[in-house]
Amino acid sequence: MPRSICVINPNSSVDVTRGIDAALEPLRLAGGPPITSHTLHDAPAGIQTEADIVQVLPRLTAFIQANEANACAFVIACFSDPGLAVAREATSLPVLGIGESAMLTALTQGQRVGVIAIQPTSIARHWRTWGAMGITSRLAGERALGLDVAELQDTQRTWDRLLEIGGQLRDEDQANVLILGCAGMPQFQHSLSQILGVPVVEPSRAATGMALTAACLTS
Amino acid sequence: MPRSICVINPNSSVDVTRGIDAALEPLRLAGGPPITSHTLHDAPAGIQTEADIVQVLPRLTAFIQANEANACAFVIACFSDPGLAVAREATSLPVLGIGESAMLTALTQGQRVGVIAIQPTSIARHWRTWGAMGITSRLAGERALGLDVAELQDTQRTWDRLLEIGGQLRDEDQANVLILGCAGMPQFQHSLSQILGVPVVEPSRAATGMALTAACLTS
Amino acid sequence: MPRSICVINPNSSVDVTRGIDAALEPLRLAGGPPITSHTLHDAPAGIQTEADIVQVLPRLTAFIQANEANACAFVIACFSDPGLAVAREATSLPVLGIGESAMLTALTQGQRVGVIAIQPTSIARHWRTWGAMGITSRLAGERALGLDVAELQDTQRTWDRLLEIGGQLRDEDQANVLILGCAGMPQFQHSLSQILGVPVVEPSRAATGMALTAACLTS
Amino acid sequence: MPRSICVINPNSSVDVTRGIDAALEPLRLAGGPPITSHTLHDAPAGIQTEADIVQVLPRLTAFIQANEANACAFVIACFSDPGLAVAREATSLPVLGIGESAMLTALTQGQRVGVIAIQPTSIARHWRTWGAMGITSRLAGERALGLDVAELQDTQRTWDRLLEIGGQLRDEDQANVLILGCAGMPQFQHSLSQILGVPVVEPSRAATGMALTAACLTS
Amino acid sequence: MPRSICVINPNSSVDVTRGIDAALEPLRLAGGPPITSHTLHDAPAGIQTEADIVQVLPRLTAFIQANEANACAFVIACFSDPGLAVAREATSLPVLGIGESAMLTALTQGQRVGVIAIQPTSIARHWRTWGAMGITSRLAGERALGLDVAELQDTQRTWDRLLEIGGQLRDEDQANVLILGCAGMPQFQHSLSQILGVPVVEPSRAATGMALTAACLTS
Amino acid sequence: MPRSICVINPNSSVDVTRGIDAALEPLRLAGGPPITSHTLHDAPAGIQTEADIVQVLPRLTAFIQANEANACAFVIACFSDPGLAVAREATSLPVLGIGESAMLTALTQGQRVGVIAIQPTSIARHWRTWGAMGITSRLAGERALGLDVAELQDTQRTWDRLLEIGGQLRDEDQANVLILGCAGMPQFQHSLSQILGVPVVEPSRAATGMALTAACLTS
Repeated sequence: MPRSICVINPNSSVDVTRGIDAALEPLRLAGGPPITSHTLHDAPAGIQTEADIVQVLPRLTAFIQANEANACAFVIACFSDPGLAVAREATSLPVLGIGESAMLTALTQGQRVGVIAIQPTSIARHWRTWGAMGITSRLAGERALGLDVAELQDTQRTWDRLLEIGGQLRDEDQANVLILGCAGMPQFQHSLSQILGVPVVEPSRAATGMALTAACLTS
Repeated sequence: MPRSICVINPNSSVDVTRGIDAALEPLRLAGGPPITSHTLHDAPAGIQTEADIVQVLPRLTAFIQANEANACAFVIACFSDPGLAVAREATSLPVLGIGESAMLTALTQGQRVGVIAIQPTSIARHWRTWGAMGITSRLAGERALGLDVAELQDTQRTWDRLLEIGGQLRDEDQANVLILGCAGMPQFQHSLSQILGVPVVEPSRAATGMALTAACLTS
Repeated sequence: MPRSICVINPNSSVDVTRGIDAALEPLRLAGGPPITSHTLHDAPAGIQTEADIVQVLPRLTAFIQANEANACAFVIACFSDPGLAVAREATSLPVLGIGESAMLTALTQGQRVGVIAIQPTSIARHWRTWGAMGITSRLAGERALGLDVAELQDTQRTWDRLLEIGGQLRDEDQANVLILGCAGMPQFQHSLSQILGVPVVEPSRAATGMALTAACLTS
Repeated sequence: MPRSICVINPNSSVDVTRGIDAALEPLRLAGGPPITSHTLHDAPAGIQTEADIVQVLPRLTAFIQANEANACAFVIACFSDPGLAVAREATSLPVLGIGESAMLTALTQGQRVGVIAIQPTSIARHWRTWGAMGITSRLAGERALGLDVAELQDTQRTWDRLLEIGGQLRDEDQANVLILGCAGMPQFQHSLSQILGVPVVEPSRAATGMALTAACLTS
Repeated sequence: MPRSICVINPNSSVDVTRGIDAALEPLRLAGGPPITSHTLHDAPAGIQTEADIVQVLPRLTAFIQANEANACAFVIACFSDPGLAVAREATSLPVLGIGESAMLTALTQGQRVGVIAIQPTSIARHWRTWGAMGITSRLAGERALGLDVAELQDTQRTWDRLLEIGGQLRDEDQANVLILGCAGMPQFQHSLSQILGVPVVEPSRAATGMALTAACLTS
Repeated sequence: MPRSICVINPNSSVDVTRGIDAALEPLRLAGGPPITSHTLHDAPAGIQTEADIVQVLPRLTAFIQANEANACAFVIACFSDPGLAVAREATSLPVLGIGESAMLTALTQGQRVGVIAIQPTSIARHWRTWGAMGITSRLAGERALGLDVAELQDTQRTWDRLLEIGGQLRDEDQANVLILGCAGMPQFQHSLSQILGVPVVEPSRAATGMALTAACLTS
């Protein structure tokens, strides 16, 4: 049985895992590695705080160790990239974070990157990550939808906010490429890009693509 | 007939094209796009000067236009990424440059990037590119082999210099990931990494991998 | 016959050349080098795309080679500085780009630089250049007039937009020096500066001044 | 009983805790908060890997919650600042990390900061932190003693290496302020500074001082 | 008689000195150094221009030399940090500037720093300082109250503007920590922080706290 | 009588003034402004400390006010640019500093700038200035001759050190343009450039050239 790219949703929402899994379909190639999606059991329902991340870390490394024999790469499918450093230390297989990969992919699609966050409270944390990546000068800005979990269920409302915030990033902040700052919105990627007229990067796809390359090149 | 990822060697050296072509074998997957390699006819024998780049540009865009109907992505396989901006404007298909892609890939494999150039004269040009990319703070340093075309034919001598320069980047500049700053040295990637104990990024592979992802996700 | 500073308008608009030529009058000194203006024949009517730039490059280097014997310096009079690197390689004479020179001059006249572009599509390209220059932290922002060629013929409308956009850069972005991001607006420099109360840099003048210095010091 | 500044040594070495405790004596003021030192039970013997950090995190937040009622501030006394973000979220009391505080203090004592690490493997991690802090342009460099735990017991050898590495940072990297990149070397601070003729920052003292200020100002 | 931390108000306004002096009460600890406040005689009434700073410099160094025997540290209590470099050269005692210290303290309390200036004309000067500090990537923005000396007497009006400008920095610029960019507003610190829900750094307190640490550690 | 560009040597060494004056000969053009050199009376013999700078400032502004009626621009001819900010405030005429102008000129002649200082103690101060300029990412490095005033009288020894240090900046730091970090060495510019094969910027010439442009364009 071929080793697979294990995409780990580090929160316990099976719905989110299912959405990610569907979004990765175009990266499943006959001769390529299988791509499997996994919900991290006992993980928080969502990852919004640093405490959520602390809870995730041992579960994540345990998952990686338990699955290393059957894996060719791992993807951590949360935009905050929880545990990216420890996971890379825990295995010699490639590990990609969707936040990091989305940003790197965006850098190939535009000069000024705009990021759409769910909640304003994440923005400072994201900037810390981008500082560590050394790419803050490429940021046009980040703006938040400001929608809570219940509101995100309302597809129309989410869509309207995406258009509004994406438009502000494009027109007021002069972004010429956008990133969806969350693993839970792949279904909006293509229409948002089409209507706003700028590329939109979906982070789970970006990271799984980088994992696919890494898996092919290291195996 | 499926559309292919067209990897363009923008110099006229068929040997270099052949080396690149072989290096990409692991990325040729059943069910995935074919990966074809192309020598840019009438291009300079090597790309070392800005004048060489000027010569390349119209040939490159002509090639892209002539092959767009059969392509799903393009890779410009010269570390100076000649014509990356104009190529991206000339087609709506993904275009990846091996210099840019190698750097972005290296950013996922280490915090401090060391680059091995062929000639010292390229170093300033590379720094200009990295400035435009906004990632100069991630550079541990760049050092040159200082070998001319004839000397590069001498595999032993090239290997000795790679070890020496790679070791300096690791030990004196504290790089923890290295990039081969040229399309012509894929055969050294794995042994160099093994002996020096740090990841080594081969740029044509890095870029073609990113093109593979992009091709899958946009088709 | 003394060697002259050749100011090259790399588009084919003779009107623009004429405007530049008039703007440089204060830099024509009895004992200094003549300053001559040139329209690049067969060049695009305007330089707005990367393809326009590709078209310009061979014409530009041909011009430089043809005129090197009679020149003491060259100025490339398009804000995107097309061909600056290749031109510097093609001749040992000083070559100045008006985009680069305008920015360097602005750095001596204020701490936070605001740039007035013609079209929003140029903004990303300008940021790439400023990244390569390593000076992005000095940018207060860039905003575009959003006027097309026809609208730019309407002096009153252009003036109104300049005032509006310049005022936004000063008041909302806290720029304390402005740059006219185009070779075609020298006639507005002094009145804009006077009304907005901040220095305004005109790029062709800035670059030709730097060329004058370079010509005197290298001859 | 007045609330105390709790200085947490996040590894389980009681010797290290004792050394830190002694070093903080000058910050114990009659009218100021007590300063107490604590060894994190069940923590790793030393913190050298990302996995060590993961182990520390829940113990650290548990300690903070258990001691919040009697504390006026917390100090995390490991140069890698493990858990700084989660600790700051876990309590409304001030939390200082010795890595961050040492760097901020150094910024007031010199323009170019040199850091003395114990092991070369930490250097990349430190640079990631400095990137997140946004201060990489102030780094003259980091160099490692390259001594293991046993060798660090040899005071003479450690001192010789400190002098050698500190001298390189001053003379080759042009640092004009140094940081001891570890909580375990306070006894060398003053003599190193005196002999090398540049200020030397001891991180536990720097952080506890910042905690003292914060405690006074928020109580 | 114990040596004291001398806090120097470099303008001649005794009222401002009095306000600073009261604000520092929490840092006066039994067993710690006395904290004394001083008005610089013959200094300008306020420090708004570079010429004001020139006037301050010799008076400041004279004060330092005259008081060195009785001091254990000096604080320059003007947000522009006039004379910080020369003061540090003039004495081997610690010298802290309130602008620098406020920024360093803010870096421990949030990722994106917003600064509230009194007058828009100071903004460019502040950015120059932050450039020299190498921390511009941490700035969310600076906005000015735009109140003159007379208007600042009107407490209600000042408070209203503080709320308005602080709210803009938080909501439009996404600052998650604020700095009062002036020594004259300590009385607003705590209520502003409480109402806006983000930490607010008062610069004289921040610097005197850093001086307290430095004094304890060097004596 | 035409207004002149006043080049101010802010130390009291008439010999240095004379050397600067001779170096500016190529910028004295018929029809252009006269260029006059001035020794600042009662100034320190050399400017090496911050205290020297404090002494210079009131003398400098007094000079500017006394000469404004006959001047069209001012140049401050000390590489530390003492008083640049206050001078620019004191007059509406252009004021150029030789340190700033040399760096801006170097940015047009190479991508990686190497600076040759006289004394190592100046290096930290220069980096502070370059931070304020926002151009630190363009620095390849700065190295000092380490010669005192007496040793600088020995032309052969100075020349030998210039070659040695310049060669290190070129070969070890990969600078492709050099700056003479002092007003006192114009006589070495051309031979140093010729032998090392990289452009060498002489700061008084660079600044006076920028002043010439500014004078022509504002009169």
